[in-house]
Amino acid sequence: MALIVQKYGGTSVGDVKRIKNVAKKVAQYRNQGNQVVVVVSAMSGETNRLLTLAEQMTAKKNSRELDVLLSTGEQVTIALLSMALEDLGCAARSYTGGQVRILTDSAHNKARILDIDETPVRADLDEGRIVVIAGFQGVDENGNITTLGRGGSDTTGVALAAALNAEECQIYTDVDGVYTTDPRIVPKARRLDKITFEEMLEMASLGSKVIQIRAVEFAGKYNVPLRVLSSFEEGNGTVITYEDSDVEQVKVCGIAFNKDEAKLTIQGVPDRPGVAYHILGPISDANIEIDMIIQNIAEDSTTDFTFTVHRNDYDKALEILQVTSDSLGAQKVSGDNTIVKISLVGVGMRSHAGIASKMFGTLANERINLRMISTSEIKISVVVDEKYLELAVRALHDAFELEGKPEI
Amino acid sequence: MALIVQKYGGTSVGDVKRIKNVAKKVAQYRNQGNQVVVVVSAMSGETNRLLTLAEQMTAKKNSRELDVLLSTGEQVTIALLSMALEDLGCAARSYTGGQVRILTDSAHNKARILDIDETPVRADLDEGRIVVIAGFQGVDENGNITTLGRGGSDTTGVALAAALNAEECQIYTDVDGVYTTDPRIVPKARRLDKITFEEMLEMASLGSKVIQIRAVEFAGKYNVPLRVLSSFEEGNGTVITYEDSDVEQVKVCGIAFNKDEAKLTIQGVPDRPGVAYHILGPISDANIEIDMIIQNIAEDSTTDFTFTVHRNDYDKALEILQVTSDSLGAQKVSGDNTIVKISLVGVGMRSHAGIASKMFGTLANERINLRMISTSEIKISVVVDEKYLELAVRALHDAFELEGKPEI
Repeated sequence: MALIVQKYGGTSVGDVKRIKNVAKKVAQYRNQGNQVVVVVSAMSGETNRLLTLAEQMTAKKNSRELDVLLSTGEQVTIALLSMALEDLGCAARSYTGGQVRILTDSAHNKARILDIDETPVRADLDEGRIVVIAGFQGVDENGNITTLGRGGSDTTGVALAAALNAEECQIYTDVDGVYTTDPRIVPKARRLDKITFEEMLEMASLGSKVIQIRAVEFAGKYNVPLRVLSSFEEGNGTVITYEDSDVEQVKVCGIAFNKDEAKLTIQGVPDRPGVAYHILGPISDANIEIDMIIQNIAEDSTTDFTFTVHRNDYDKALEILQVTSDSLGAQKVSGDNTIVKISLVGVGMRSHAGIASKMFGTLANERINLRMISTSEIKISVVVDEKYLELAVRALHDAFELEGKPEI
Repeated sequence: MALIVQKYGGTSVGDVKRIKNVAKKVAQYRNQGNQVVVVVSAMSGETNRLLTLAEQMTAKKNSRELDVLLSTGEQVTIALLSMALEDLGCAARSYTGGQVRILTDSAHNKARILDIDETPVRADLDEGRIVVIAGFQGVDENGNITTLGRGGSDTTGVALAAALNAEECQIYTDVDGVYTTDPRIVPKARRLDKITFEEMLEMASLGSKVIQIRAVEFAGKYNVPLRVLSSFEEGNGTVITYEDSDVEQVKVCGIAFNKDEAKLTIQGVPDRPGVAYHILGPISDANIEIDMIIQNIAEDSTTDFTFTVHRNDYDKALEILQVTSDSLGAQKVSGDNTIVKISLVGVGMRSHAGIASKMFGTLANERINLRMISTSEIKISVVVDEKYLELAVRALHDAFELEGKPEI
């Protein structure tokens, strides 16, 4: 008898029919002799409905009350799913985040889980009940309702799996696993049976939106076995493993891309210590997140400095950079918000020079100009004009024979 | 500086604009130097929306999960109202029933309040905050969410006023007070400035739907000064007082009526001890509430027995009564579901024979036949055919000069 934590996202519980469908899936697991803890999100659309009400109420953001408001979304789902389970003859009991109790810090709207009291959950499981828990929410030490921020239900699932020492945490979503790349762009893209934790982290951070990156980090910290699978189709999904990778064996597991990037360049900056801080400090101070950073070697005692930001922050970043440029006496500021980042992900690839040259050669053959290059232990990222996105991804998918590999 | 508890019902907080309007009213009280605790219901329509979801989920009633579901309604309102108050520059903090904590018994869907921990509320008030509390809900000793049943927000308001020893509990609704009778039937009906607790209890139980009868009972138990007033209009409303009534001075305060009644008669029942129990026992066992009961004196060792029930229960009651009639060897069962009950309410009226005879004389002048009569310390009720309702109420309102009296 295994203890399984299952997490169902907003689309999976989007309406009455889908909640009944989830109840059937959960009951099936239960009837196979497993103990099941279910974590659910708000019904899709509900969080946005509540946010709209809040916006109509005040232009100022009220973080504490926003959490009181938003947490009702999952509370509705836990009650409805528990009703559906009991309707199928499965004893079930719901818990809000505060009831479990999922203790968080007091950072409203983006709280972090500090502790979970799993005692009542275990007692219910031992009495044969299915336990249904509201994702995304918790309570601080003063009893205030908190939320973990968007996508936080994944983190709730993983944290509960860790606290309960569950055999597996299953993340149910609207795709049936992690793919070598986005099947909408490469129809031949293949579902991976397994992916390592580090690779998943890169895939998630690079725009593969199957699972929240915070949840993956959390899973890694507590070695929680994770599985991503579909609420709507049968199948085994993709398991995220913690096996030691064989670094000698180069493995390209997939191609991730991010269409939300924009790049900014400041040219002819006098090259002196602290210049990077002077350029990026004001950007960070404006709460703009910086992704890639590249500085070329200095020529004639000046240097060129390029970085990428989210496309939504492009105009604001350009404005700030112009002020910095004037104060530093740089030559020129330029930018481009029609670029994309494409990344090859795989354990051990950095130590294998052949991978990078094969990647660059493939793109050169398609006459795709590389605007930026950046590498890490397990990925190589390039920035190209957005019009080349599909061409580049398909060419790389072919070149690395990703559709053909039986196993990573 | 007075401590005031204000309760706003579902219509008063029915949409964003109305919640902002409530915030303005609350802020005004606060800025006059009062400490204010606000109790709110779910936005009108929300409870029905949630009930529909529950019905779609299961045909079986799941009392525990229904409370988890329904309690989200008020939770949404407390968050939105707190936002609106902060938007007006008033520090505010929301509490769910569980957070306050309003301790109830474990009777889901119809829980009774056992205790309120007013400490955190007092602390907030002392720090200058407005406290916004979800009505209708609480938590049992095991931390399960409970609800008090429909209209329970009135009870929450009164219970908080008692716990905080508030100067007044103000019930805001869509009418501006308690009237001598329903102004839709008698346009000349007058708003009462004051009404005694006992009279209010009769008016409420007789169908004047301004305030929940349980809340009035609760207020009476703890001597909480109650005021009923409108969310939408200015005015002082009606105060419910606990002054000792001057029984010598006859006061007819108003005319209540109830259109939801049906009457059943069993004739020629052998008159022996226990007959009332034999007739009414099976009705009560079927969870049918009995209102008026009249038994005429026995003739020829048989008796006639008449009682009224809610019109919705009429068919079921008639069926049960037929079975009883057969087993008791009664002569006949008959019934009528086209009747109404009209009641004259006022302290001290019973000891003043003139009131009853004036009432009966007025109705006789209009050729209205009385089908049943029942009296209590502070009311005289008659049952008449429903077609006479308006005529009877207007004639009585005129006869007792209710529109003309400056004060009860």
